[in-house]
Amino acid sequence: MQDQESVDLDQRWSERSVLITGGLGFIGSTLAIRLVELGARVTVVDSLIPQYGGNLFNLEGHEQALRINLSDIRDRYSLEVLLQDQEVVFNLAGQTSHLDSMRDPETDLAINGTAQLSLLELCRRVNPGVRIVFASTRQLYGRPRYLPVNEDHPVEPVDVNGINKLSAELYHRLYADVYGLSSCVLRLTNTIGPRMRIKDARQTFVGIWVRRLLEKQPIEVWGGDQLRDFNDVDDVVEALLLAAADPALPPGPYNLGSHEKVSLRELAERLIRLNGRGDLRIVPYPAERRKIDIGDYYSCYERFQVATGWQPRRRLDDTLERTLHYYRRHLAAYV
Amino acid sequence: MQDQESVDLDQRWSERSVLITGGLGFIGSTLAIRLVELGARVTVVDSLIPQYGGNLFNLEGHEQALRINLSDIRDRYSLEVLLQDQEVVFNLAGQTSHLDSMRDPETDLAINGTAQLSLLELCRRVNPGVRIVFASTRQLYGRPRYLPVNEDHPVEPVDVNGINKLSAELYHRLYADVYGLSSCVLRLTNTIGPRMRIKDARQTFVGIWVRRLLEKQPIEVWGGDQLRDFNDVDDVVEALLLAAADPALPPGPYNLGSHEKVSLRELAERLIRLNGRGDLRIVPYPAERRKIDIGDYYSCYERFQVATGWQPRRRLDDTLERTLHYYRRHLAAYV
Repeated sequence: MQDQESVDLDQRWSERSVLITGGLGFIGSTLAIRLVELGARVTVVDSLIPQYGGNLFNLEGHEQALRINLSDIRDRYSLEVLLQDQEVVFNLAGQTSHLDSMRDPETDLAINGTAQLSLLELCRRVNPGVRIVFASTRQLYGRPRYLPVNEDHPVEPVDVNGINKLSAELYHRLYADVYGLSSCVLRLTNTIGPRMRIKDARQTFVGIWVRRLLEKQPIEVWGGDQLRDFNDVDDVVEALLLAAADPALPPGPYNLGSHEKVSLRELAERLIRLNGRGDLRIVPYPAERRKIDIGDYYSCYERFQVATGWQPRRRLDDTLERTLHYYRRHLAAYV
Repeated sequence: MQDQESVDLDQRWSERSVLITGGLGFIGSTLAIRLVELGARVTVVDSLIPQYGGNLFNLEGHEQALRINLSDIRDRYSLEVLLQDQEVVFNLAGQTSHLDSMRDPETDLAINGTAQLSLLELCRRVNPGVRIVFASTRQLYGRPRYLPVNEDHPVEPVDVNGINKLSAELYHRLYADVYGLSSCVLRLTNTIGPRMRIKDARQTFVGIWVRRLLEKQPIEVWGGDQLRDFNDVDDVVEALLLAAADPALPPGPYNLGSHEKVSLRELAERLIRLNGRGDLRIVPYPAERRKIDIGDYYSCYERFQVATGWQPRRRLDDTLERTLHYYRRHLAAYV
């Protein structure tokens, strides 16, 4: 038996046309599966660039229930056709690695800046009534001046990725303001769960920790005392759905976040405990990364909570346990 | 007889190799001429895109004293060679029209964002010891929340140009912070004087006012009550030289500005009075531009004044008079 809220949610999404950029990625694929369950007509776009989060396995078994279009968001011609007649775009595609953005800043800009601007121009021209939800990042706050970080905190990105994500966010808000495009910006904090990239630390360091644990290697914790908040991917999916569902919701930006905050060392220890075994090694923060280290970070997500009623509902331990369970079964598909 | 300060200035620039991007433009060419006077070895780069500020006439008569290289800053291969062995880069090239940035946002991004990032990458690789001074703009503050606007004012660009100039500024500051590149960012307010674009309002509305006045057409003043501050181009050139001369000066950003502020209507009236004749017509702010109107604006430039001793020294009336005089003699070269 469904409660009233889920009935509402079903009706809200049933038969609606939805495009997810980055839809083979961690969050995008989890969202796609949820939307299929809710009865939406889902198209996912993904470049499958090997260093990014896209993985065909993320939607294995769901291929008949949605449309998978392999293309890069820098390819504006395919995007123009895919955007037509969509009611909602979940704009999740992006380069997410902070280190890669420093090694190859121009590619980061092409994907996280230029392609985002093109996408908005296309929406304005071929689908001005679309609702577009953009996944931004806490990365653009830089080193917190105070905690928890709310949306009024100064924006001081410490890497090229943060600068370009800021531009993309500002484009989304500008197109709402000037052209009346219905956009909404969420600033995600660390998101974890099944389907995240675990091959390396490009998407989240928790990914490589899970991999090393399951491969019986010690987890390397850089520093260890830094505090972080983590969101379960299912909570983030719920936030994305809420942000999309109400076209009257102003563009934001809105932080996501969690009331549970832990140090990196504690997170590693919890993972080891939940796994039943494992080791961790504290190593000094690598020199190459020190300049883009931000110290402690956790969010205030009150603005989004007040606007939509959202709050994170999954406990961190449950998320970690579910994640370990997922990768124990599917490790080979992710390494 | 020179005073001590000018002797110092001469010695500081004598025989130094200097590159000016946008060097055929309004500020760039004025700076180039000044640097030649000071004994520097000057190379200017300019794309001469017809809609922008570059004009060969700006350096007419100076061609033998400096090197003019026609190329676009999006052309990274020529830029790579031109950057080598320069001691200072004055990075002034850019798309400056707010309206053009809305009509063709991708070009604005390519020039004001992508090319700026490439330039910094090139500096880092082929000339990491260079001092680079970047001309940013008050445009990125958006609608002032308080006046005068200092550098702590929130950054809330109201057009694509402001977003992209913000990115470029953040790249310059990031490359200073992470790679030790010696950069400095000045946020210019309305700059006027000889050599500005007067063909249309793309660079500054004062340009088209001067043109209309000299062509005996009424000046069109949009709104009229908005307050603005104006800097004489010679004061801006002095600021650029000061920002470049001290490699220990932190990247900023630093506002330029003026203690003299006037309404647009008053500025038009002054121009007419100084010209001896002319008419003005107050027209409602055009709908197309209303969304990117920012209301009153004037800067606090105290941070730069404290850091370098700079202050604007030219009186607005003198600037306007010198400007009218210049265009009376050279109108044909600018329309």
